[in-house]
Amino acid sequence: MTDIWLPSLLAENPQAGFELAIKLSRHSVKAIQPSDEIRMKLRGAYANDTAQLIASSQVIATFFQSVGAANDWWR
Amino acid sequence: MTDIWLPSLLAENPQAGFELAIKLSRHSVKAIQPSDEIRMKLRGAYANDTAQLIASSQVIATFFQSVGAANDWWR
Amino acid sequence: MTDIWLPSLLAENPQAGFELAIKLSRHSVKAIQPSDEIRMKLRGAYANDTAQLIASSQVIATFFQSVGAANDWWR
Amino acid sequence: MTDIWLPSLLAENPQAGFELAIKLSRHSVKAIQPSDEIRMKLRGAYANDTAQLIASSQVIATFFQSVGAANDWWR
Amino acid sequence: MTDIWLPSLLAENPQAGFELAIKLSRHSVKAIQPSDEIRMKLRGAYANDTAQLIASSQVIATFFQSVGAANDWWR
Amino acid sequence: MTDIWLPSLLAENPQAGFELAIKLSRHSVKAIQPSDEIRMKLRGAYANDTAQLIASSQVIATFFQSVGAANDWWR
Repeated sequence: MTDIWLPSLLAENPQAGFELAIKLSRHSVKAIQPSDEIRMKLRGAYANDTAQLIASSQVIATFFQSVGAANDWWR
Repeated sequence: MTDIWLPSLLAENPQAGFELAIKLSRHSVKAIQPSDEIRMKLRGAYANDTAQLIASSQVIATFFQSVGAANDWWR
Repeated sequence: MTDIWLPSLLAENPQAGFELAIKLSRHSVKAIQPSDEIRMKLRGAYANDTAQLIASSQVIATFFQSVGAANDWWR
Repeated sequence: MTDIWLPSLLAENPQAGFELAIKLSRHSVKAIQPSDEIRMKLRGAYANDTAQLIASSQVIATFFQSVGAANDWWR
Repeated sequence: MTDIWLPSLLAENPQAGFELAIKLSRHSVKAIQPSDEIRMKLRGAYANDTAQLIASSQVIATFFQSVGAANDWWR
Repeated sequence: MTDIWLPSLLAENPQAGFELAIKLSRHSVKAIQPSDEIRMKLRGAYANDTAQLIASSQVIATFFQSVGAANDWWR
């Protein structure tokens, strides 16, 4: 049975939508590198490397566009 | 005869849409590097390199925008 | 209790929207590297490295698209 | 006389649209490096370099958004 | 008092919109590196480095999407 | 007097729109590095470097989205 982690793109407000965008970003990485152990090790690397921190932010920004659209921008 | 791997962009829910975005990302790589063997070898490289993991996530995030739009964001 | 930092995507005008996009970019980095101390140290690195300055601008530009859409482009 | 290679963005289905996105990506590279010979040589380089494979996928994903929009997402 | 540099996203025509996209790109860099002196020094670096020139163009292209949308694509 | 190089985003068909996207990409680079001589020298560098060729294609793909939207995707 597949774990249900994304039942909906709806979020109560922009901040909850932002959190969802982060979740989507993390699941993307997980989809490519499923090992929790390896991801944990790698995390130390990118959390201290500004170029990678910025690239990660870009992924969050891109998912946030989807979450925002799905919530009709909370208008 | 061409293999039909993308009959539709419709997905039952956001999570299925996310899986479809991953499929589209993988097929993009396959379109440029069709050899299963080489891709398998390369996989070890990028699954352990955070910069490439993040870049791959960016591709997934971009395809997810298309899948989401095609499903009218599951509204 | 979670700190409320993004109650709304509404901004009075494009410039305020631009400031909000910067705030979203900073919070993205913060989500991945929560330590204020480490982020402060890293800041010196990317503020003086043009490649990273440009990549940061890309993140701002992407968030600005969301903020603009949420404000119906201030039309 | 200019070679007509993009008479329309219409594609019968998502998969045909995906193929069109690849075509657009290839023509982008061709527009900057018109020499078939040089492109052929370079191809070996990027088809075996995961970072470049991923970056190429990003281009395909971006063009796919255009093709999808032009086809009203095959709805 | 804050300097008003972005009172509106409206531009008379696409070319004026393109200029506005460049202005937005420059202000993004300025938001991260506020020192005029340092930015001036860095400018020499990226204006002569094709990879950074291309990355800067990507930022302009992304802001241009916002400016275009705000102007309903000058239709 | 400013040179008028972008009077309109309208293009007769997708291929003409693609050409316009290339023009926008070139003008972006020109906006940052105005010297024809330096750009000409740099051109040799990026036209033979696949990573930069791909990044340039990304810029074209992004501008193509704007041109396509402005032309209502030639529907």
